[in-house]
Parts: sequence; C-alpha cells; structure tokens
Amino acid sequence: MRVLVPFDGRTPCSRLAPVLDSEERRALAARLREDVLDAVRAAGGRPELLATEPVDVGVSVTVDDRSLSAAVNAALTGEPTAVVMADLALATPRALSRLFTASGDVVIAPGRGGGTNALVVRHPDFRVDYHGASCRDHRRRAHEVGATLRELDSHRLATDIDEPGDLAELLLHSDGRAARWLRDAGFQLSTGDGRVAVERHP
Amino acid sequence: MRVLVPFDGRTPCSRLAPVLDSEERRALAARLREDVLDAVRAAGGRPELLATEPVDVGVSVTVDDRSLSAAVNAALTGEPTAVVMADLALATPRALSRLFTASGDVVIAPGRGGGTNALVVRHPDFRVDYHGASCRDHRRRAHEVGATLRELDSHRLATDIDEPGDLAELLLHSDGRAARWLRDAGFQLSTGDGRVAVERHP
Repeated sequence: MRVLVPFDGRTPCSRLAPVLDSEERRALAARLREDVLDAVRAAGGRPELLATEPVDVGVSVTVDDRSLSAAVNAALTGEPTAVVMADLALATPRALSRLFTASGDVVIAPGRGGGTNALVVRHPDFRVDYHGASCRDHRRRAHEVGATLRELDSHRLATDIDEPGDLAELLLHSDGRAARWLRDAGFQLSTGDGRVAVERHP
Repeated sequence: MRVLVPFDGRTPCSRLAPVLDSEERRALAARLREDVLDAVRAAGGRPELLATEPVDVGVSVTVDDRSLSAAVNAALTGEPTAVVMADLALATPRALSRLFTASGDVVIAPGRGGGTNALVVRHPDFRVDYHGASCRDHRRRAHEVGATLRELDSHRLATDIDEPGDLAELLLHSDGRAARWLRDAGFQLSTGDGRVAVERHP
C-alpha cells in the first residue's frame, strides 16, 4: 500500500522543548522518522515522505509547505493510501499490518488526545482535517461522504512522541533508533507512585 | 473466562483530585467500575470483584485489603484468569474479547506509563507485581517461569482513567455511564493547539 509519511522539518518535536534543546529535537525527530519508515517497509508498505522542506532520506519526497491537512489532501490521488505520522516510534510492522489490512473505506487509528495518528483512505471523496479533535471530525466526515468507517484500537499507533511524558513510552516499548538515541542522551525511566516518567542523567 | 476486577474503594481516582472533589471521585469510580463489569460480561467473561472493602455490586465480591499484588496473587487459583482494572472505561467487549482469546500462557495489555492494565494468566507459576513499571517486570517474570508471553496492543486497554488528561479520552471514546456522568458534571472537550483537554462549565 502507498503510505504517506508527513514530516514537519521546520520545528520538529517542538513540545519537547522543556526537556530537549532545538538541535536535540531535530536529532530525535530524524530518528523517529527513520523508525517509522523502517516499520512501514517491513509491513509491506511503500513509503513516501511528505515534507515541509527537502529531506535526504532514501525514499520519494514531496515538498509541500502548506498546512498538514492541505498537503495530505493534495497528495490523495484516489489510490488507496495510508497516512502515518512520522513520530509514531512505537509502530511495529505488526501494528501497521493491522492498519493496512483493516477493512473499511476509511480506517482511523486515533491518537492520544483526539488526533488521528494513522489512517487509511479508500474512498474518493474523503478529505482529512487534522485541526482539533480530528478523530471525531474524521468519523463525521466519513459518515457524510457515505464511507464505511473502521477504528483501529492500537496503543502503539495511539502514541505519538509529542510531549515529555511520551518519552517514557519510547523507553518502555521500543528498541529502535529513537529509543537508543534517547538512552544515549542520558534518559532513563523513573518509577514512582503513579505512571512511569523519564529523568535525565547526563 | 474468570475475570478478576480489582477495585480500591478507599481513595478511588485519587489522582483526579485537581479536578474532582472526594465525593465526585467516588461517584465517577463507581461508574467506571460498572462500565468495566458491563464490558466484561458482554465479552463473555465472568467478573468477580476483588475489593478493599464490601461493595454492593451484583457480582461476586472478595474483600482483601492487602496490596493490589498480594490480593491478586491470592486470588489466582490455577484456573485461567484475567485481571482487568476497574478504571478501564474505554474497554469495549471487542477489546476484551481480543484479550481473552489471545494465545499465550501470559497475555499483557500494557497501560500508558508502564502499568499492566489487563492481563491473562494461564501459567501456574506466574505471579503479578504491580509496583513500578509492571509491564516490564511482568515480561521478565513470564520469561523466568518459562511462560509464553503475548503483548496485546490496545489503546482502549492502555487507557486507565487515572489523571486529569485521561478524562479527554473518556469523552472522546465512550458513551458509557462514566462518560455520561462526566458530561452531566459539566466537563467538555477543549481543543487547542496540541492534544485535546477537558474544561468544566458548571
């Protein structure tokens, strides 16, 4: 399946600013993206990067600096297409296979906090809108265009690496490039009374 | 399948104190528990409450006021048993069916933050330890006793209603008793730049 991987190269991982400086955020974002591209290929997908600026990455790159929604909609050609965010570092080939093979004109993998971290579009009239609680909006849009909808229940695809708390998920559930980079940067799990967090020991 | 549902009636939902008072937390916890019991039954499970104090709830109740791990281990009898936390309000019959039917001597559904929100035990020597990053410890313990391990990838089972940010997941993905109670209490989604949050309008 054709798989678009949107990547914002301007201010990647900006919400990790409390724990990583700008250079580090770029380094982590590149590794997250590589992990995702690897997993897509291993799941039998054909990845294409949809980037805000040129990136040297070994797959086809389309540069489009408009909003995420505008760029994705312009890239939907009618061919069945998956859209998988570039920061889903927990995505395994197995999780992506479930996504690619799920039936439905539209398949949505909701992200934590109401986003749409991954989806498959097989209906010619469906368009994305990533603003706000997009998983809710995408449900409604699928209904409006008469597309059958399937929601995929996956913690791995629900977990984008967006906020500092997400780094714990990376250390808990991945051994990929991004997780190794994070460990090399001195991050480790910190267990207390509630959920596990991360702490840094340079 | 036999399904233990541990429920702490002493200070339920304590980490929601920033947004709900003590009485409200009890009210929400009761509805979360009812939603979980409903979903377990609809998935063909036979729920038993494992509670810190007597609860009038229409299913078999074992009272054990020791730690969660001690109480669960005492209730493991050798019969294949699932353990499903009482605050998994996003658990659907479908998600629980995936859990109950997954193969493996031990099946783990990791929770956000490294917990073990749901598991199935089919091996006589496996014991739980819910302290700290329990999903990691449970992986190791399964290996140590020679049990085959399967990890179940589910956002619905990964989402316990523990912290204020989790309330958004409840409003986004559930229409059960707990979600309805939350809406009646004035909570609604608040969309901004990042993940969706909740705000309260009394």
